[in-house]
Amino acid sequence: MGHLESITGPQDLRRLDDRQLTELAAEIRDELVRTCAPRGGHLGPNLGVVELTLAIHRVFDSPRDKVVFDTGHQAYVHKMLTGRATQFDSLRTEGGLSGYPSRSESDHDLVENSHASTSLSYADGLAKAYAIRGEDRHVVAVIGDGALTGGMAWEALNNIAVGKDRSLVMVVNDNGRSYQPTVGGLASALTRMRTNPRYEQVLDQVKRRLNGVRGVGPAVYDALHAMKKGMKDALAPQGLFEDLGLKYVGPIDGHDLGAVEQALTQAKKFGGPVIVHVITQKGFGYDPAERNENDQMHQVGPMDPETGVARPKGRIWTDFFTDEIVAIGEERQDVVAITAAMLYPVGLDRFAARFPERTFDVGIAEQHAVTSAAGLAMGGLHPVVAIYATFMNRAFDQVLMDVALHKCGVTFVTDRAGVTGDDGASHNGMWDMSIFQVVPGLRLAAPRDGARVRELLREAVAVDDAPTIVRLPKGAPPEQDIPTVSKVGDADVLVRRGAKDVLIVAAGAMAATAVEVAARLEDQGIGVTVVDPRWVKPIEPALVPLAAEHRLVVSVEDNGRVGGFGANLLQLLNDERVSVPFRLHGIPQEFLDHAKRESILEKIGLTAQALARKIVEDVTALDAGHSLVDAP
Amino acid sequence: MGHLESITGPQDLRRLDDRQLTELAAEIRDELVRTCAPRGGHLGPNLGVVELTLAIHRVFDSPRDKVVFDTGHQAYVHKMLTGRATQFDSLRTEGGLSGYPSRSESDHDLVENSHASTSLSYADGLAKAYAIRGEDRHVVAVIGDGALTGGMAWEALNNIAVGKDRSLVMVVNDNGRSYQPTVGGLASALTRMRTNPRYEQVLDQVKRRLNGVRGVGPAVYDALHAMKKGMKDALAPQGLFEDLGLKYVGPIDGHDLGAVEQALTQAKKFGGPVIVHVITQKGFGYDPAERNENDQMHQVGPMDPETGVARPKGRIWTDFFTDEIVAIGEERQDVVAITAAMLYPVGLDRFAARFPERTFDVGIAEQHAVTSAAGLAMGGLHPVVAIYATFMNRAFDQVLMDVALHKCGVTFVTDRAGVTGDDGASHNGMWDMSIFQVVPGLRLAAPRDGARVRELLREAVAVDDAPTIVRLPKGAPPEQDIPTVSKVGDADVLVRRGAKDVLIVAAGAMAATAVEVAARLEDQGIGVTVVDPRWVKPIEPALVPLAAEHRLVVSVEDNGRVGGFGANLLQLLNDERVSVPFRLHGIPQEFLDHAKRESILEKIGLTAQALARKIVEDVTALDAGHSLVDAP
Repeated sequence: MGHLESITGPQDLRRLDDRQLTELAAEIRDELVRTCAPRGGHLGPNLGVVELTLAIHRVFDSPRDKVVFDTGHQAYVHKMLTGRATQFDSLRTEGGLSGYPSRSESDHDLVENSHASTSLSYADGLAKAYAIRGEDRHVVAVIGDGALTGGMAWEALNNIAVGKDRSLVMVVNDNGRSYQPTVGGLASALTRMRTNPRYEQVLDQVKRRLNGVRGVGPAVYDALHAMKKGMKDALAPQGLFEDLGLKYVGPIDGHDLGAVEQALTQAKKFGGPVIVHVITQKGFGYDPAERNENDQMHQVGPMDPETGVARPKGRIWTDFFTDEIVAIGEERQDVVAITAAMLYPVGLDRFAARFPERTFDVGIAEQHAVTSAAGLAMGGLHPVVAIYATFMNRAFDQVLMDVALHKCGVTFVTDRAGVTGDDGASHNGMWDMSIFQVVPGLRLAAPRDGARVRELLREAVAVDDAPTIVRLPKGAPPEQDIPTVSKVGDADVLVRRGAKDVLIVAAGAMAATAVEVAARLEDQGIGVTVVDPRWVKPIEPALVPLAAEHRLVVSVEDNGRVGGFGANLLQLLNDERVSVPFRLHGIPQEFLDHAKRESILEKIGLTAQALARKIVEDVTALDAGHSLVDAP
Repeated sequence: MGHLESITGPQDLRRLDDRQLTELAAEIRDELVRTCAPRGGHLGPNLGVVELTLAIHRVFDSPRDKVVFDTGHQAYVHKMLTGRATQFDSLRTEGGLSGYPSRSESDHDLVENSHASTSLSYADGLAKAYAIRGEDRHVVAVIGDGALTGGMAWEALNNIAVGKDRSLVMVVNDNGRSYQPTVGGLASALTRMRTNPRYEQVLDQVKRRLNGVRGVGPAVYDALHAMKKGMKDALAPQGLFEDLGLKYVGPIDGHDLGAVEQALTQAKKFGGPVIVHVITQKGFGYDPAERNENDQMHQVGPMDPETGVARPKGRIWTDFFTDEIVAIGEERQDVVAITAAMLYPVGLDRFAARFPERTFDVGIAEQHAVTSAAGLAMGGLHPVVAIYATFMNRAFDQVLMDVALHKCGVTFVTDRAGVTGDDGASHNGMWDMSIFQVVPGLRLAAPRDGARVRELLREAVAVDDAPTIVRLPKGAPPEQDIPTVSKVGDADVLVRRGAKDVLIVAAGAMAATAVEVAARLEDQGIGVTVVDPRWVKPIEPALVPLAAEHRLVVSVEDNGRVGGFGANLLQLLNDERVSVPFRLHGIPQEFLDHAKRESILEKIGLTAQALARKIVEDVTALDAGHSLVDAP
């Protein structure tokens, strides 16, 4: 029997000796690989924080002390150590453990959100609250160096620096990258701290000796740590953090459990804000991850646990974007690309390889991505900014005030829009079609298939005086493109059969579902028209008279119901005095629990079967002579 | 005749000698006071940048070179020097000069937005564009030390630092404050640079000699500059900016034109990114502003130009908040207040004076304001975050993911909501009632009068498991509170007369207008019900059957028409199968030009007269037997 299954909470860690802890770390790594391999997950980041998480839970008293993980995907080890080791194989399955901290799972989890760079702000608030309430608790924030490039982190550091009497330990988990290698002046500054030659020498010595660590006794181990501790004090750099007035401890070898524990203990005793700079290696201890040069297996899909090779899958939405943006880049010298630390996931890798001088990775810095794009446009270029839909929320103001107000031609490609599923509430891209509706002049396209990704991207980069958004869902588009049978203005009619009973207007990925719905309605003898508007904003005006010709209008979108495409279509029809009964189908306006995308769509009624059933009910009521609306 | 009226553009500045420039600076200050006194404006910041702006336009070649002003309210002097001196007395009047840069006014204006901390991002984009296009242009960003506390500035600095070959001059206009004294570790770092004793000595010497400057010849003046230049090189601190890898020049006395010119010339020649740290004094050269301890007359209303004393005005919406939050603070020890560098404008000054240990000014850092509030709430307190409505856009993601997802009890008081007028497109708070509609669990209140500010604030701080917003307009509430005649669920009925012809549902400040509309409709024999929903989100369910009893439903709000209160009411009625004709009145979804609030409301049809006329037309059509809707 291993140690892991006997760990019911952090208190159990404190009775283990060094050798047992080393064995436990190895067990944890095995469990991480074993669980992530079949179903995917954030393997690399968690392999890198095994010793760090052990140290935190040995030094601090969670849940009395509060541990806030920035971008909570690095909390798998934390879950195992806080009473959830035996459930760990349910990770990221419906009803099982979430891939992020979850307050419903454990008192040890506080912050569930996966958007980066927030932990220092939470921690500042917590530390202020405990100071005001006179409670003697410690607050620990664990933030990656990549997340430090986000503006929120700067805002927080600036404020934390003046709270001299508030205990707050900021662990900078420095692995030189978030998804991508960390960029910018900050990265250089951290590298200077990290590559101090004397520090490197010490590390080498320690590593050589540690190769035999399973055989050494606690005394030798402690001696090693003591030696390193002395070195650390000598090495403390006069750097960025100290300019801000923040106490700094480091750099620490993050895979040396004893060293990390000592540093944290020192920081805990200090009683004010302290940065603990810990150097870790993403993917540490798992060969296929260490060797992976793209992202050290930041987030893996299902793969072979021995080789780390991902199972093959079909072409996803992103791939169609990749193909087309490279082609556009060949044709137009003025097209440049921007990513916020996610070159591969958003599909800009091939563009970057082909046009490195026209590709900018700004780090986890969505605000700067958007406003620097406005500057690029003012300078005569056409930027294409590719960001996950959920992270675009960070730059709403910049899209509105910096791009749209200035009529800048900037194309946004928002990936992983709609229901994404496995990663939980904060990853679903269900807000964009609502909030960006309010932006004057902005155009928003939702492609229904691979061909439309190419077509609408072309139309977007042709707009020079306004922002456009091309919205890509997670996963794969229909294997076969969905043909257009006729046009209504700029919109595509996909189905036109029988009497004009029902008009279904379906945005983006829901167009395929609507075509399936149409087949089911036809089987019931109901006439149906299916339209893909292509451009969700502005709404094609020709849809207004088309709606008036039908008995029932149905909108379908994989976006929140409030203020989205359907709501705006309803508002337009009302403005134009069209009062055809209207049914709006979208995501209920609530935070969704994690589950497979298909399972969520079923639960919220966005499948062909569920939609067809509802529409048949409505039409049956119409046929029975019931008005679909109540007269006043 | 003075120099100012002969300045048709920057080229005219280059022919002036030192004495003429000194005289010109004095003329500019007179003109600033003379114009701002009768009608208000951003006096203090512009008094502080007279010499700086002169120097920029003498050293750089605008509009070929690009000058981006952060928070463009400091661009008055720039306007005078770029061909608009003779129109300056039309500042901030309808059809006259805007209070911010305006591309329609001049090729010298590039960025119009007034939201802070953006200039470095624009400048990074511009510099990248010119590098790619092979154009030899310089880019200058002028940013206040206060705006450097915003996260965007950090994101930009981090990226700019690695663009070693791109010419980019970042002028840090350091006056120790934005609206409020600059806060945090950054402020301390800048102070250390600024208060270097050797620098102070030099300044003193220079100031003593400058007292007689009108009499000195160019030679003496130049000698002074040369002496200072030598000192500056010796003083260049090893600080924050250099840690990031950014070249630094400074600190420079920002009221010494020659010194600023020399520093800018040096920076221009460098060919890469350079920080030029310029120390200025807000309100410089105008005694009443220099003596004003709150904010050096950051933004003045109409006042006496000799004494700088503002004309008295009535109680504004903010005053009612101030009264009540102080009272709440007395009763509840767990209530804390947060402001983002705007303690006075948002009405937290008295709370801060009474409860300094429970008040946090986080600087221009809306994201941190919101997420640290989530942390405070998790720590057992109830934060009240007071921010201008337009600046809340910056923290949309934090409200959604950090506060609402975690069910934190945080109260937001969004000031200057709705049409604000004079300050132009980027100040109007016309987005909040739309974007915050999508946030699950969030509650949004719009008080109609002073009594309701108090009442709804009380209701807001009583909510412990969700964010609430209390939305305050600009200006003054009705002199008399508007009484409730009966209740419909949680909503207030304000008027109930005659037949149930028209139901007007009016949010916040528009309730007073709706009561006026009702009087006009009664005169025409039209029965009317006016409801103030109080809580705009969620919508009171009892409004659904009430709407169904009327022949026409009218919604009125001072928010964008798209996705706002009316749109959500329409969606709710549609979901509930109520098909009463519905008319939605709000702000057209476009960027509004600057003008007085009253003038804008008239232009967009949100006055009692315009609304009554439209409603009468609709009711007349109903009476004539026309359906208000087209049957399918």
